[in-house]
Amino acid sequence: MKFHFFQDALNMIADAGREIIDKRRGHDALGVPYDMRHLCEDLLSQKGEALGVALAREVVTTYAGLNGEARRGFFLMLRDEFGPDQAALDGAIQAYQNGGGQNALMHLSQAVESRRRALIRRINMAPGGTAAILSMREDLLRYLKTDPLLKPVDSDFAYLLSAWFNRGFLSLECVDWQTPAHILEKLIEYEAVHEIDGWDDLRRRLAQDRRCYAFFHPALPDEPLIFVEVALVKGMAGSIQDLLSTTPSAESVRQADTAIFYSISNCQKGLTGISFGNFLIKQVVEELRSDLPQLKTFATLSPIPGFGNWLKKRREQEDYEDYGLDPEIGEKLAPLDNPGWLIDEEMSNALKAPLESLCATYFLKEKRKDLPADPVARFHLGNGAQLARINFRGDTSEKGLKQSAGLLVNYLYDLKKIEAHHEAYAADATIAATKAVKQLVG
Amino acid sequence: MKFHFFQDALNMIADAGREIIDKRRGHDALGVPYDMRHLCEDLLSQKGEALGVALAREVVTTYAGLNGEARRGFFLMLRDEFGPDQAALDGAIQAYQNGGGQNALMHLSQAVESRRRALIRRINMAPGGTAAILSMREDLLRYLKTDPLLKPVDSDFAYLLSAWFNRGFLSLECVDWQTPAHILEKLIEYEAVHEIDGWDDLRRRLAQDRRCYAFFHPALPDEPLIFVEVALVKGMAGSIQDLLSTTPSAESVRQADTAIFYSISNCQKGLTGISFGNFLIKQVVEELRSDLPQLKTFATLSPIPGFGNWLKKRREQEDYEDYGLDPEIGEKLAPLDNPGWLIDEEMSNALKAPLESLCATYFLKEKRKDLPADPVARFHLGNGAQLARINFRGDTSEKGLKQSAGLLVNYLYDLKKIEAHHEAYAADATIAATKAVKQLVG
Amino acid sequence: MKFHFFQDALNMIADAGREIIDKRRGHDALGVPYDMRHLCEDLLSQKGEALGVALAREVVTTYAGLNGEARRGFFLMLRDEFGPDQAALDGAIQAYQNGGGQNALMHLSQAVESRRRALIRRINMAPGGTAAILSMREDLLRYLKTDPLLKPVDSDFAYLLSAWFNRGFLSLECVDWQTPAHILEKLIEYEAVHEIDGWDDLRRRLAQDRRCYAFFHPALPDEPLIFVEVALVKGMAGSIQDLLSTTPSAESVRQADTAIFYSISNCQKGLTGISFGNFLIKQVVEELRSDLPQLKTFATLSPIPGFGNWLKKRREQEDYEDYGLDPEIGEKLAPLDNPGWLIDEEMSNALKAPLESLCATYFLKEKRKDLPADPVARFHLGNGAQLARINFRGDTSEKGLKQSAGLLVNYLYDLKKIEAHHEAYAADATIAATKAVKQLVG
Amino acid sequence: MKFHFFQDALNMIADAGREIIDKRRGHDALGVPYDMRHLCEDLLSQKGEALGVALAREVVTTYAGLNGEARRGFFLMLRDEFGPDQAALDGAIQAYQNGGGQNALMHLSQAVESRRRALIRRINMAPGGTAAILSMREDLLRYLKTDPLLKPVDSDFAYLLSAWFNRGFLSLECVDWQTPAHILEKLIEYEAVHEIDGWDDLRRRLAQDRRCYAFFHPALPDEPLIFVEVALVKGMAGSIQDLLSTTPSAESVRQADTAIFYSISNCQKGLTGISFGNFLIKQVVEELRSDLPQLKTFATLSPIPGFGNWLKKRREQEDYEDYGLDPEIGEKLAPLDNPGWLIDEEMSNALKAPLESLCATYFLKEKRKDLPADPVARFHLGNGAQLARINFRGDTSEKGLKQSAGLLVNYLYDLKKIEAHHEAYAADATIAATKAVKQLVG
Repeated sequence: MKFHFFQDALNMIADAGREIIDKRRGHDALGVPYDMRHLCEDLLSQKGEALGVALAREVVTTYAGLNGEARRGFFLMLRDEFGPDQAALDGAIQAYQNGGGQNALMHLSQAVESRRRALIRRINMAPGGTAAILSMREDLLRYLKTDPLLKPVDSDFAYLLSAWFNRGFLSLECVDWQTPAHILEKLIEYEAVHEIDGWDDLRRRLAQDRRCYAFFHPALPDEPLIFVEVALVKGMAGSIQDLLSTTPSAESVRQADTAIFYSISNCQKGLTGISFGNFLIKQVVEELRSDLPQLKTFATLSPIPGFGNWLKKRREQEDYEDYGLDPEIGEKLAPLDNPGWLIDEEMSNALKAPLESLCATYFLKEKRKDLPADPVARFHLGNGAQLARINFRGDTSEKGLKQSAGLLVNYLYDLKKIEAHHEAYAADATIAATKAVKQLVG
Repeated sequence: MKFHFFQDALNMIADAGREIIDKRRGHDALGVPYDMRHLCEDLLSQKGEALGVALAREVVTTYAGLNGEARRGFFLMLRDEFGPDQAALDGAIQAYQNGGGQNALMHLSQAVESRRRALIRRINMAPGGTAAILSMREDLLRYLKTDPLLKPVDSDFAYLLSAWFNRGFLSLECVDWQTPAHILEKLIEYEAVHEIDGWDDLRRRLAQDRRCYAFFHPALPDEPLIFVEVALVKGMAGSIQDLLSTTPSAESVRQADTAIFYSISNCQKGLTGISFGNFLIKQVVEELRSDLPQLKTFATLSPIPGFGNWLKKRREQEDYEDYGLDPEIGEKLAPLDNPGWLIDEEMSNALKAPLESLCATYFLKEKRKDLPADPVARFHLGNGAQLARINFRGDTSEKGLKQSAGLLVNYLYDLKKIEAHHEAYAADATIAATKAVKQLVG
Repeated sequence: MKFHFFQDALNMIADAGREIIDKRRGHDALGVPYDMRHLCEDLLSQKGEALGVALAREVVTTYAGLNGEARRGFFLMLRDEFGPDQAALDGAIQAYQNGGGQNALMHLSQAVESRRRALIRRINMAPGGTAAILSMREDLLRYLKTDPLLKPVDSDFAYLLSAWFNRGFLSLECVDWQTPAHILEKLIEYEAVHEIDGWDDLRRRLAQDRRCYAFFHPALPDEPLIFVEVALVKGMAGSIQDLLSTTPSAESVRQADTAIFYSISNCQKGLTGISFGNFLIKQVVEELRSDLPQLKTFATLSPIPGFGNWLKKRREQEDYEDYGLDPEIGEKLAPLDNPGWLIDEEMSNALKAPLESLCATYFLKEKRKDLPADPVARFHLGNGAQLARINFRGDTSEKGLKQSAGLLVNYLYDLKKIEAHHEAYAADATIAATKAVKQLVG
Repeated sequence: MKFHFFQDALNMIADAGREIIDKRRGHDALGVPYDMRHLCEDLLSQKGEALGVALAREVVTTYAGLNGEARRGFFLMLRDEFGPDQAALDGAIQAYQNGGGQNALMHLSQAVESRRRALIRRINMAPGGTAAILSMREDLLRYLKTDPLLKPVDSDFAYLLSAWFNRGFLSLECVDWQTPAHILEKLIEYEAVHEIDGWDDLRRRLAQDRRCYAFFHPALPDEPLIFVEVALVKGMAGSIQDLLSTTPSAESVRQADTAIFYSISNCQKGLTGISFGNFLIKQVVEELRSDLPQLKTFATLSPIPGFGNWLKKRREQEDYEDYGLDPEIGEKLAPLDNPGWLIDEEMSNALKAPLESLCATYFLKEKRKDLPADPVARFHLGNGAQLARINFRGDTSEKGLKQSAGLLVNYLYDLKKIEAHHEAYAADATIAATKAVKQLVG
């Protein structure tokens, strides 16, 4: 059974109701325009839903026509006027506190439910409703940065999106050169780690020695939610520039024993905070194991977004000893200030040991609330991966040099150890790292 | 983009985790078996979700292996042990009562959320998780009949299912003779109004002068949620036996000006209380209008499930006058007791007027909480349809005679009047009925 | 890329031309009706093909409206008036005989081409043209039985159909319970060996321990050309009634080591003489080997259509000695005349040895033009299969008893020996048979 | 039913036979290598086809490994050794000449059939066989240019390809931005009229005010055979640079009343001489009429490939009077030699009248064998189109200036007049042209 989301039929239903809505616009007894407030109230009140789809679409298109200030106003209205019924809530609290037991709890749970949630659920009935709601939340998250009072509104959006984008509803799709162009162009648009430089570059990333997988949700069939790019190689890859520049060949596919996850990109800002990455990696590992049994190793080639700034601070503060490092390491880093170090073999060689040592120290000793300071490290270690190798000159692009002095790192997903690593990390933030990495620490 | 729900990959992921789960079974320090309680607690606790899919599948398969008593025990456990954190809830109530405003409300809303909901969300990650949850709720609804204490548990199931089966996620599909057999056989299984008597009967109901539409949800691609059977005819149809026995012809399709919705069947008991019927009818009307512009009238041919019993009671109590009826109507009904009335033209003719009069009276005067007593009437009138015609001898099957003395009724969906009818009905339970029906009333 | 055969667009093109064709009907200067002769001549003459599709459809629909006699007349017309241009042909022969070499040969080959072939090619442009041509040939083959003069016409039909249905254009499809119903019902219709008794029987033949494969041609997407039914069993199956009556189970699938091809049915009478069976069996063997590596043996369970009559003749003529059989075998067959032998164990046991011996003799000694007399044997032995086992009481249905005294036979497809067997058979009609079968011979 | 051409299964079948083929390579009794000659003879001889697919694939891969000279040798071998059986042919001729009638004709037709045809038919059984045969013919056509003796071989290739690519087997597909990328890149590769400059240009040509349609054959699902690019515009378009540079808008789509076919490209060199263009245009016109009823005019914007050279010759020979032109026109053309005429308004204006006059003269007076000299004109006029308008500065690209002094022409497809035009053209080469064009003639 293939699924068509009958947007046409939905639009026809909406059109059928439009006339009535249009008539109302002029007819408000108090001379009040038929605005978002009225639309939302009517959408909620339609018990019989005679006009549900029409009203939902009207909310969506009206919202789309609002300017920034008006959109913010819409969210403030949701906060102030579409919360729960206070009297009912107070009654439910009282009944609960009077020892009402499980039933009172249930009623309390129902009474505390804001009218916003019901409203968002009904907006989802509009043609393209889910995409519209994601877009609303994208705006909302922006306003939230300066206006924390909108937090309760976002809390309801996030609650429903989290229920709807339950991973049981996602489908994993293999994206390749046979994929429709309108989806492929989204990879170019959304790639967040190593920019895709046009269609030729994209094609190379979909060649026979590469794989790309994405999660999709049935209500957004043309929009990847998150995708991962994988390179099939022989042995652990340590250099992104080598990885991206090799020419694909049937030979290299035959010899591949390792899958390198070199880029993971989230696509939907409206889904911020609703995480799929962990699940994606594990499902892709299983897909690859089943398709290509010769693969023995599954690892990432990952950026170290926090290392560059941390390194800069160390060099400014010269507090190497606080990290157990030899204070003379500062001098050894001097060549870094010479932009030519990358092409000067001697300088480059001199930098390798101190940079690797500092990087291992950063991973294993620098903490935020007892956890590793690096956000990418927190993600993979939290998934049960192991910090496997630090790669000097792993990313010599301008971005890579700035972000992490050109270093990249491999996180190893060893299926047999994932749970043990995960549990140790969850219990007391133990960082799984190879001996090789540990020995680099100062 | 077509969607595969990668059950295979999910099962592989689950298999990868199984070994660890199996090991645990024997290893519980307290000698407690690794039972549903432990499984559910672990499934909830896996913050990093290292074993999420494996544990979710284990919950599903363990549940499937439980007997009735143990299943009931599982739901009681959900009630007693997977509610909200009481201390946190009490704290949140206090903060709210101390004037915490919107943020306190938000925290209260989060604190009151039962752990059951999170658990059900995680069970949905299992391969086939959505179907398993529907099946759990089907059991739960059965237990609920005798054990109302389970109501809070059902409330959480219903809450999540209602969010997941939001109509914005449903797709309308046309079911015909080109549809895969494993879906067609479900029509035979689920048809609830006029039984489908095998494949030949099914084929006739999918012939060129018929249409069948169903709602599907992407997570249950092989399971219709609800379906409606439509006959394309000339003029309003009043007899289901005539409708089902005519031979299809291209001629009759060309002449058709009316679509008769003669059967609507819900398929999933686990979705009881989550209604799609109203939306289905309206979407199908739009589909048909677009495909077949010659159709002018859209109406049902519906059973009157409450009329038979009501009639019996009237005849027992002889309280015709209370309904404004001539008390002599009782005698006129006497032929009903003669099983031969159906084939005796004279008796049959004599019954027509009194039965129609009583039926109209039943519809327009018999109420439950101010609404029409008949459940089918409440559904269609609530949708904005109009009671259009009462059909004597509309269903002369044994079931039809027993249920409603052989009468059927047409509800008319007049798109221009749906909202007005709906609003009048919602405001003060005004029943939209044609003059012809009103005149039949005693 | 999925393929739509845009019948709608073709019909629109045809409609656009129809007006012109209709006008012509009345306008023929000589008062001759615009009949098939004119239509065919015009269809051939349209060099620019301005009306090609319209004329082709007209030929198809006009043909469909003809009665039997007129259809026969159409084919006679094709024979007499749509051959090659005689003068051109005679000239080409002369040029060839004058030593024109390769070029003259080429021109001769072009000159001998009948105008019928070009006509059939153009008819194929009509919407549904391929199906119409198959249907024409089905008629033609019927007329051919009594009218051998139509042979040259059939020769051209067969030539083009053979080119179009080249096996490189066929696709093998797995037919199962997920297949659309309108295709499944064709299996019921076309099954030629062991009748399918309705949808329940069909469903059993598509259960988990069965497979069904069919060849399709892209121009006839709803019509199987030939299909084979396969049972997955443990050990060689010898009884069709056992095979069809067992209940499917996951267990039996797991234990299966043998694929039994128990029914092969051609579906299109219009493709008579264009053989796909050999290729189908081999492709299905490869599919099964790849899907289910545990399968070790691939064999048929086949009828022996010629044995019953042969046996009857032997019993009448009592010429057993001519076949090297003990003349007393005749008496041992006496219980055959007692209809109760099937349920009388003693009689049944007594018949086993003589029937098997006669059957082996029939296979190995009875010849038509040096080849085995049995047509099914000629097919499988010609494919390189081996006569593996004779099964007493293999088919105890009325048909089976009449056709072959209840015997069935297994032909073994041993991939390693297929070519050797085939070559030996092609060289000197050597029949590959197991020792067990050979030892049964009189 | 979707179609998979089970290349995998075919390859498995071929693999199964490979061992035997490999063995043969070494075993040839005479020490002759198992070369193309042997392979082809064996492929033809396999009556039972035990190794058909394996041998066919071997022929294909062996051919692919041959160098140019060896490939030519292969075709010469096909010419000399795979013709018809001469003795049988001579016998059949004699029987025919002896008055054998229809049956003798039929036998002659069979006897003249070269063994090449049977061979090509069998090669088509290989995985990817059809594509391989197209590729062989592409080579063959190249050799044919210098070696006309290969004509009889090509004649057989063309005969079979023409039967296989019968237009009844082609499907028309709409190509748009939802089309898989590996097909879209072929548009870039094959576009023959107005080069597509990368993916951004392609995307613009598939925008909402454009349409692109292609013919596909089921055996080559990833390869368009021919495609046409259409622009939806208001009024007849005269300038390709304007057409390609406008920005698409919903507004322009709404206002469009004209479909301009501005580029038609054949994609498969191996199908040279097997024409689809006429049929493609007509089917696309019907598709567009059905999808977009507001379209009233269907016309091309076409190059005039022969005009540039013809003009050059006129200017050299100054034979204007022979064409009925004023001899002074030569001087008026002088600005053409000034490369700046395009940007000098005065010069440009001065050239308009003489160029249009010469162009109309070229179309209407210059003939090859009584037909218009221009090949594109012959194609469209032969289809029944009308020469509608000559566009000065229609194509100011370097190519356009060289090919036709920057002129383009519109051919109008007026469905009501197509047949009349076609017939007049077929009868006596009457050129359908508008009054406006006729009046330009000298």
